[in-house]
Amino acid sequence: MRAFTEERDWAQFHDPKSLILALTGEVGELAELFQWLPADTAANRAHEGHLHQRAGEELADVLLYLVRLADVLNIDLAEAAHRKLAGSSARFPAQEVHGQAPEKS
Amino acid sequence: MRAFTEERDWAQFHDPKSLILALTGEVGELAELFQWLPADTAANRAHEGHLHQRAGEELADVLLYLVRLADVLNIDLAEAAHRKLAGSSARFPAQEVHGQAPEKS
Amino acid sequence: MRAFTEERDWAQFHDPKSLILALTGEVGELAELFQWLPADTAANRAHEGHLHQRAGEELADVLLYLVRLADVLNIDLAEAAHRKLAGSSARFPAQEVHGQAPEKS
Amino acid sequence: MRAFTEERDWAQFHDPKSLILALTGEVGELAELFQWLPADTAANRAHEGHLHQRAGEELADVLLYLVRLADVLNIDLAEAAHRKLAGSSARFPAQEVHGQAPEKS
Repeated sequence: MRAFTEERDWAQFHDPKSLILALTGEVGELAELFQWLPADTAANRAHEGHLHQRAGEELADVLLYLVRLADVLNIDLAEAAHRKLAGSSARFPAQEVHGQAPEKS
Repeated sequence: MRAFTEERDWAQFHDPKSLILALTGEVGELAELFQWLPADTAANRAHEGHLHQRAGEELADVLLYLVRLADVLNIDLAEAAHRKLAGSSARFPAQEVHGQAPEKS
Repeated sequence: MRAFTEERDWAQFHDPKSLILALTGEVGELAELFQWLPADTAANRAHEGHLHQRAGEELADVLLYLVRLADVLNIDLAEAAHRKLAGSSARFPAQEVHGQAPEKS
Repeated sequence: MRAFTEERDWAQFHDPKSLILALTGEVGELAELFQWLPADTAANRAHEGHLHQRAGEELADVLLYLVRLADVLNIDLAEAAHRKLAGSSARFPAQEVHGQAPEKS
């Protein structure tokens, strides 16, 4: 993404707020693909065909902007994810939260 | 994320629509970190300190739900991203779009 | 919202991109309230109690930033909504789309 | 929106999670309109012409799904917004926060 951006002289557009808006746009496109599908059959419908193709494209767009944003912010994304997951593992012990969705309030 | 989920018996909550809502939530938290910062100094302010730490956590959350969603949809995320980037490279030749942001309408 | 903003000298923060990030943040908070609830009982659970209260607060936040953004962009929000709904009514004749969700692709 | 929905037998698609995904989609489309514009000239550029028209359509879509969601959740949106604004006015006294953006952390 850095090379892609620099070859096009697009770094000037990639301040954090603009990239977060781009990320928002891609998550929005992903949401639109699934919004009216029944919750229980959505995964199966997306396992092949047109929806599988389109979902892959939108997930890819989200990842590409996420990687670019991490680059601009000087964040090691893989390291941050491993640390976050380790933190969540400690915060939600499997025995205590088994089968229970953590509530956000 | 798959192991983390299965240890907690949380796969029952991870249908695509629920995971996209979770992704929306994390992008929203990321947006809130930057919303009132001046566009031109936001990157510098996030290069260290509290904002760097918080941005890393939110980027991590976005990646973790993205990876989990790809798993549920049976999508190879890295492969999808490489294909998408190759497509964008062909669609936006560096010479033609140099210094010009592609318009969405 | 205009008076609230001017009394606090916050108009300087309310450029369109910043307000869209704020809107994204509030939609994200709304998403988090519902993300892990079963689709078919979510509405009932939100008809009273804590979730009803919290959902009302987040819907309010979305509306407030939306109204503020319309003000900054010099858009008559009610007029725009009436025009859009009239357009959708013409585009999706009730007879033709009865019981069928319009697909986004 | 209620009449529009019932005439098309679309209420079956309008559970809260689906409507929040639709809202996410519309906020995403709005974000895409502004993502690459310079922060300081975005408002002026949107004061007329094509961008003014498109922004109005997307703001309208956000409002329409917001109103529909409020209906499904049995929330009085105007009342909730007035209450929230009164709460924010008390929480952020104009004298104390003058010219300072409230930080989210």
